[in-house]
Amino acid sequence: MSGNKAVAYKGPGKVEIIDTDYPTFELKDGPGVNPANVGRKVNHGVILKTVATNICGSDQHMVRGRTTAPADLVLGHEITGEVVEVGSDVEFIKKGDICSVPFNISCGRCRNCKERKTGICLNVNPDRPGSAYGYVDMGGWVGGQAEYVLVPYADWNLLKFPDRDQALEKILDLTMLSDIFPTGYHGAYTAGVTTGSTVYIAGAGPVGLAAALSAQLLGAAVVIVADLNEERLAQARSFGCETVDVSKGDPKDQIEQLLGVPEVDCGVDAVGFEARGHGKDASHEAPATVLNSLMSITAAGGALGIPGLYVTGDPGGIDEAAKVGSLSLSLGTGWAKSLSFTTGQCPVMKYNRGLMMAILHDKAHIAKAVNAKPIPLDEAPQGYEEFDKGAATKYVLNPNGYIAA
Amino acid sequence: MSGNKAVAYKGPGKVEIIDTDYPTFELKDGPGVNPANVGRKVNHGVILKTVATNICGSDQHMVRGRTTAPADLVLGHEITGEVVEVGSDVEFIKKGDICSVPFNISCGRCRNCKERKTGICLNVNPDRPGSAYGYVDMGGWVGGQAEYVLVPYADWNLLKFPDRDQALEKILDLTMLSDIFPTGYHGAYTAGVTTGSTVYIAGAGPVGLAAALSAQLLGAAVVIVADLNEERLAQARSFGCETVDVSKGDPKDQIEQLLGVPEVDCGVDAVGFEARGHGKDASHEAPATVLNSLMSITAAGGALGIPGLYVTGDPGGIDEAAKVGSLSLSLGTGWAKSLSFTTGQCPVMKYNRGLMMAILHDKAHIAKAVNAKPIPLDEAPQGYEEFDKGAATKYVLNPNGYIAA
Amino acid sequence: MSGNKAVAYKGPGKVEIIDTDYPTFELKDGPGVNPANVGRKVNHGVILKTVATNICGSDQHMVRGRTTAPADLVLGHEITGEVVEVGSDVEFIKKGDICSVPFNISCGRCRNCKERKTGICLNVNPDRPGSAYGYVDMGGWVGGQAEYVLVPYADWNLLKFPDRDQALEKILDLTMLSDIFPTGYHGAYTAGVTTGSTVYIAGAGPVGLAAALSAQLLGAAVVIVADLNEERLAQARSFGCETVDVSKGDPKDQIEQLLGVPEVDCGVDAVGFEARGHGKDASHEAPATVLNSLMSITAAGGALGIPGLYVTGDPGGIDEAAKVGSLSLSLGTGWAKSLSFTTGQCPVMKYNRGLMMAILHDKAHIAKAVNAKPIPLDEAPQGYEEFDKGAATKYVLNPNGYIAA
Amino acid sequence: MSGNKAVAYKGPGKVEIIDTDYPTFELKDGPGVNPANVGRKVNHGVILKTVATNICGSDQHMVRGRTTAPADLVLGHEITGEVVEVGSDVEFIKKGDICSVPFNISCGRCRNCKERKTGICLNVNPDRPGSAYGYVDMGGWVGGQAEYVLVPYADWNLLKFPDRDQALEKILDLTMLSDIFPTGYHGAYTAGVTTGSTVYIAGAGPVGLAAALSAQLLGAAVVIVADLNEERLAQARSFGCETVDVSKGDPKDQIEQLLGVPEVDCGVDAVGFEARGHGKDASHEAPATVLNSLMSITAAGGALGIPGLYVTGDPGGIDEAAKVGSLSLSLGTGWAKSLSFTTGQCPVMKYNRGLMMAILHDKAHIAKAVNAKPIPLDEAPQGYEEFDKGAATKYVLNPNGYIAA
Repeated sequence: MSGNKAVAYKGPGKVEIIDTDYPTFELKDGPGVNPANVGRKVNHGVILKTVATNICGSDQHMVRGRTTAPADLVLGHEITGEVVEVGSDVEFIKKGDICSVPFNISCGRCRNCKERKTGICLNVNPDRPGSAYGYVDMGGWVGGQAEYVLVPYADWNLLKFPDRDQALEKILDLTMLSDIFPTGYHGAYTAGVTTGSTVYIAGAGPVGLAAALSAQLLGAAVVIVADLNEERLAQARSFGCETVDVSKGDPKDQIEQLLGVPEVDCGVDAVGFEARGHGKDASHEAPATVLNSLMSITAAGGALGIPGLYVTGDPGGIDEAAKVGSLSLSLGTGWAKSLSFTTGQCPVMKYNRGLMMAILHDKAHIAKAVNAKPIPLDEAPQGYEEFDKGAATKYVLNPNGYIAA
Repeated sequence: MSGNKAVAYKGPGKVEIIDTDYPTFELKDGPGVNPANVGRKVNHGVILKTVATNICGSDQHMVRGRTTAPADLVLGHEITGEVVEVGSDVEFIKKGDICSVPFNISCGRCRNCKERKTGICLNVNPDRPGSAYGYVDMGGWVGGQAEYVLVPYADWNLLKFPDRDQALEKILDLTMLSDIFPTGYHGAYTAGVTTGSTVYIAGAGPVGLAAALSAQLLGAAVVIVADLNEERLAQARSFGCETVDVSKGDPKDQIEQLLGVPEVDCGVDAVGFEARGHGKDASHEAPATVLNSLMSITAAGGALGIPGLYVTGDPGGIDEAAKVGSLSLSLGTGWAKSLSFTTGQCPVMKYNRGLMMAILHDKAHIAKAVNAKPIPLDEAPQGYEEFDKGAATKYVLNPNGYIAA
Repeated sequence: MSGNKAVAYKGPGKVEIIDTDYPTFELKDGPGVNPANVGRKVNHGVILKTVATNICGSDQHMVRGRTTAPADLVLGHEITGEVVEVGSDVEFIKKGDICSVPFNISCGRCRNCKERKTGICLNVNPDRPGSAYGYVDMGGWVGGQAEYVLVPYADWNLLKFPDRDQALEKILDLTMLSDIFPTGYHGAYTAGVTTGSTVYIAGAGPVGLAAALSAQLLGAAVVIVADLNEERLAQARSFGCETVDVSKGDPKDQIEQLLGVPEVDCGVDAVGFEARGHGKDASHEAPATVLNSLMSITAAGGALGIPGLYVTGDPGGIDEAAKVGSLSLSLGTGWAKSLSFTTGQCPVMKYNRGLMMAILHDKAHIAKAVNAKPIPLDEAPQGYEEFDKGAATKYVLNPNGYIAA
Repeated sequence: MSGNKAVAYKGPGKVEIIDTDYPTFELKDGPGVNPANVGRKVNHGVILKTVATNICGSDQHMVRGRTTAPADLVLGHEITGEVVEVGSDVEFIKKGDICSVPFNISCGRCRNCKERKTGICLNVNPDRPGSAYGYVDMGGWVGGQAEYVLVPYADWNLLKFPDRDQALEKILDLTMLSDIFPTGYHGAYTAGVTTGSTVYIAGAGPVGLAAALSAQLLGAAVVIVADLNEERLAQARSFGCETVDVSKGDPKDQIEQLLGVPEVDCGVDAVGFEARGHGKDASHEAPATVLNSLMSITAAGGALGIPGLYVTGDPGGIDEAAKVGSLSLSLGTGWAKSLSFTTGQCPVMKYNRGLMMAILHDKAHIAKAVNAKPIPLDEAPQGYEEFDKGAATKYVLNPNGYIAA
């Protein structure tokens, strides 16, 4: 109970395993902790022994040095764990429960939580609505790529799995409930995917693949996944998606070949602000490319789900506009088609229970779709590196050996 | 072009093939035609050569003599056909198109049609909102279990299949778009079925099975189908449903064995007013059984979709209350659980395009789910008889030989 | 701080002021307390000094002796108060806050609370989903018609008013946020009332009048309120409603005189199981009258909001069916029109914040609409009696003198 | 029946009254008529004698010469008229009916119309989804600022007023149903306005004022209207709105003074691409100003309704980006707050019936809110000029003297 090995950001391109303190029921000062949160009592929290914790694409923004994340920030917001200590105010979650943790921390007491908008909780981040574990400017809640982690407002935040053995057996699927499965689902859902829809998903990373599987769950007739990375496109095809290689020119033509028409009903942006251009422009960043492309591709009356992250400042942006988060958008294209747009963090709690049921009853094989690969905590640095290079793999850290070989 | 062989109701228990007139662009007097509709011009209509037309459970209410249907009423409201003549006001539907006909006739001009409530169109039935082909008290539009049939407001009503060859190849699936697939889907949809739901469907006839497949399409985690008829339950199991045999006692116990809890999230009534009792009462009619059972089985906060038909008068009802359509409902059971209820004809047009896309892209195998069986028009009387005896079969009439052997 | 004067049920037709214990942060044994709730720790609660607490029509079911409520049950679930003590786990609610208490107690931690269904919380009533203060068979939480009351899960349950002086100035309006204003709004909202709707509300008691005002807020073109009680109908007319006197015959005729058509878009049942007949049958109870009438009156495609209480057992019911809560419903009438139905307790938290804003910005004068009348706690027995006799008055108890003369 | 006086665009800044042909049931060639529409038969249409036809802000884009509108294009898409001739295929609309015409022309037969998306009908404009009368690049349907006008698909498009005398009495209100009242309502509705909302509306022109009145109808607690034009702001205050003068600096500060917080729940863009800057930048165009400001002002979890027009090309744009319709948007601001956005033409038919009911029953005084002023057809040029100068007036042309003095 003395220490707590964890994955930390050490500087641009650098991730290391460090020794940190075992958590207590108080938010202590440390790298990235918001001063107004230092000393916050967390009797409503529990301490989890981590069962699985995944590397996420949004971690990469920090690791690439495109944020103001401080050195020694403990990373990790995709967490599944076993409850090992229970705060004095916790009533329904018990020691021994295996639970999924929504990456967005929320209080369960503010107006937004009461309205199911847990991605923009008003009480957990002193700077603005919304928070997450192990993330820069998100309040300073310590990350979960570690052996142990503190989860506040545990009765509200945790999704308990009904059966321990079943949970461990399906852990590579269930670990996706903390972020990418609901996030992909949110993208597809807010894009209006329903029975019979045609869907275009920009990005074949884990969130894009999760959006693709979600679109299938929602009844889509055709799911098209687009990327520059052939290995990731092959992964999309492995579970029945069509694919578009955006390095080969305008997606419209490839869509027309697939569907007979150059448009889809629903568009999902699973890329965000680090987008690259299409066709001959594929070699450099062009942050508005995906959104402009989706407006062009989506049929009149359609909708765009935008789980891909857009920021208000990007020190590493390609030009002055990008550095302050300004995108050159052809909004008139969307306006003429009466498109609608949904942005923002996925409110995980709105979807995780239903998706858990789909997994437990063998209706959703998300681990296979995103090619989940468990690795020891110590190998996290290699995981980050391979993922950044474009591996068609979702890396799942296994800090305490729960995940069987 | 002179005659038109058709299936007619001839009296309780009696169905025959008769010769009728080839349709014209006017609604002529005949058995069951509403006097106010006689002589109505139908230049907005087309004449279809029937490709497929199915026997429906709701036809059986008439055939069993439990309605005021007159002799010689031409039956049939589940119609798919090829356009052979086009009225002078038709602009977008063309000769040669293969189209599905929603069983509810609607005008596309009234308030309800504009609000997508095509099951209660205000302009097609002089007596009340809502209409259908070949059905007693529904305005008198001639039924489609025939070689040819007139479809009014064709530009509005018809769903054209994009490719003729593909349509004929998948005709046994596509023929279900005129009624039971959308009707089952409407039941599941209005019951709130979504990703991860547990669902209980009362009735394993074609509509119940279509509701079950629809619940799967909508992402249900577990679909439970209940009936008294073991052959039909086996049919439900053939595509992945769980089953409950209501002759074996209270469904609650069987549900608990399947789910670990005695309740489901969503309930669908695919039986209607000719329901029988459960357990030891299974041998006689008990019209409120299904609804009372569903209120008991559905968890607090759930919803009931009620595509099963309830009537305002039933001459063959088991007692005085049933004869005037009064049901003894334990509404307090539902009220305590905050249940909601959706009744009525499915507005087919709201769903048929999406379901067509699901069929065309191999996402929904409805013909297999309901065990579709094509038979010649001349064998319709046997089809009616076998279906009434409880065959786990959906009979599809093939009046013009379009359906290959 | 030693005692706590309270209003208690003493037997059929009998209400008295009694001395009870000042609350502590534990649910102690007492009249009507569920054994499984005895000893429950409530460190998440606060103790309120009651600012206003209203007599509700649903209290009358108990007072009339039509439930199994035990003697000495402290009544009252419509509570507004000032926080005087704060439990050790409460984080955001502070001493001195003036707050509205939703009548439905909820935990803010279960699946239903997370889905905004706070009327059927799973964790507060050991017997079934859903709970309330001072109500038989609802878990045993002590009623709030008292000087002080304990409110559990305070951070979740309480709606804090932004300004103390403003709150006390508008207290006769704000006190309606604990139950009848949201309950009436829920009725209108679930009946589908929107801009331009025509609405029929059965019952001109406080909930009916609140539903009428809510229908106006939701943009209704015409709001018709129906009752047998001329004084209550006059109250409805005082804020711009049309009225129907159901003792004078079929409401359809009166509706036709008002609207030119005998139907409305939306129907609200603000009566429930103690309904009386219409026309010549108005002198005796006829529990299915209101629902059958609403199905007849509501146009095809409409919806029924049913906030009026229906029970599963009524010892005082007029016949055997009524005693077990069975209603003889003409469901076929509703089915033919594709009506939908929403039943159950209003989930107050879904609406109270918005309605508070409407009150604070002078958009909703609910106190005037329901004719709110403050009376001292000691006069509660007379308040109950006058209300039961049909006074067009909403009685607001003023136990601690906060409400100025 | 020989001639038809009409208002025509004659070149930048120039509007004249011209003599045109009386309409027939065929779309003839003429200024701005799409070649593919020339000769189109319109037996489904009616000819209206214009009762009222309004000058719209979107007409000004053409008149200012910022589009490719050809000379002699007959203007006018806000039309109310009396049916004087009925095409041979029209069944329900009759001679003598007084009707409102939705500005978006739609067929009532395509997928989008069936889904209530009449702003993007697939069958009326050969170039793209969506059409309108008297508008450049919208198919070439002749404008209605004329004595007579042809309305296609009359049974589908027209909203008949129930009573002729009542219609003429309330004509200054009812004339707003063809465009600005539904358009403003759509803005407020898609911004999520409901009971108790705080709302910020950018733009106090007629659409902004209509959005403000709509927000009140939808139950808003506070409606704030913003503009640079003091006369228009005074008009907004005349019916109970708060106002912000954006020439006086950042709206955030003014909002905070009004609400105590610097944010609103809902934002509406009733300005579009010809927006000017705020504060010291108010003197020049800055097309992204309104959207960036709304993202900054709208609270996390809110929504933006964007009825204001954005285009894909603007020859008169202030810079190269503006000329191709590219806006520099700080999307990250909206993303961090999980905002959603709805763009496009209002589908008038979705709202006009309900708004008509609100007008007929004296619940919405839109003519007063927008300061409707009837003028003779001959004075249209002055009306255009005064409106362009910023008059706080909605000009209603009265070509046939129906509007009483």
